[in-house]
Amino acid sequence: MSIFTKIINGDLPSYKVAEDDNFIAFLDINPNAKGHTLVVPKKEENKIFDLSKEEYISLMDFSYRVAKALEKAVPCNRIGMSVIGLEVPHVHVHLIPTNIMADMQFTKKVELTNQEFVALAESIASNFS
Amino acid sequence: MSIFTKIINGDLPSYKVAEDDNFIAFLDINPNAKGHTLVVPKKEENKIFDLSKEEYISLMDFSYRVAKALEKAVPCNRIGMSVIGLEVPHVHVHLIPTNIMADMQFTKKVELTNQEFVALAESIASNFS
Repeated sequence: MSIFTKIINGDLPSYKVAEDDNFIAFLDINPNAKGHTLVVPKKEENKIFDLSKEEYISLMDFSYRVAKALEKAVPCNRIGMSVIGLEVPHVHVHLIPTNIMADMQFTKKVELTNQEFVALAESIASNFS
Repeated sequence: MSIFTKIINGDLPSYKVAEDDNFIAFLDINPNAKGHTLVVPKKEENKIFDLSKEEYISLMDFSYRVAKALEKAVPCNRIGMSVIGLEVPHVHVHLIPTNIMADMQFTKKVELTNQEFVALAESIASNFS
């Protein structure tokens, strides 16, 4: 069972920003930049292109809605999107408020307090529709 | 007019792997890894989340089909996907045959000959459906 399935099942905590029957979005706790969010299908699949076309399109649709909320909540040049998956074998779309290339390279990390994570998740969630 | 619009208009050459009325896919000539492909909407928009939901979903659908061809043509752990756009202000989806994290960080680059680019583009194109 992946760490993301444990979050989905409520066995691990998360700073949740959006959820429906098939997808969940929560803050990355080791963010590249403030607002770095993961969008995850509740179905535990390893590789994004092993999702059916229909599942993949639904995930991309949900990700678009999260990105729109994110760009309202976190001022930035643009929202970057990345899907890699070499570390956690459960599909996850990174949505990252980006100003410089380093925000997308997974080498620079920022630290936030618990209170900052909570306020950020609430702000993104309030802009999600 | 972006460098990608010049490619779309045929004013600059490219190693094309797929095209329809709305999208084109061609090899990145400064690839992170062998098979690194860019998927570009013919409509010149700067930021992916400024595309309408319908345009964005069509782009993601086309990208899925290119990714499926790419994973048949280029053996790898998985196809990574990234959208950043800080350099060229015309939406482009990076699809990158990925084995290690560095393949997705835009710091490591590989060199291919013209003949290798041509053969690679033909191989990916032959698997596109």
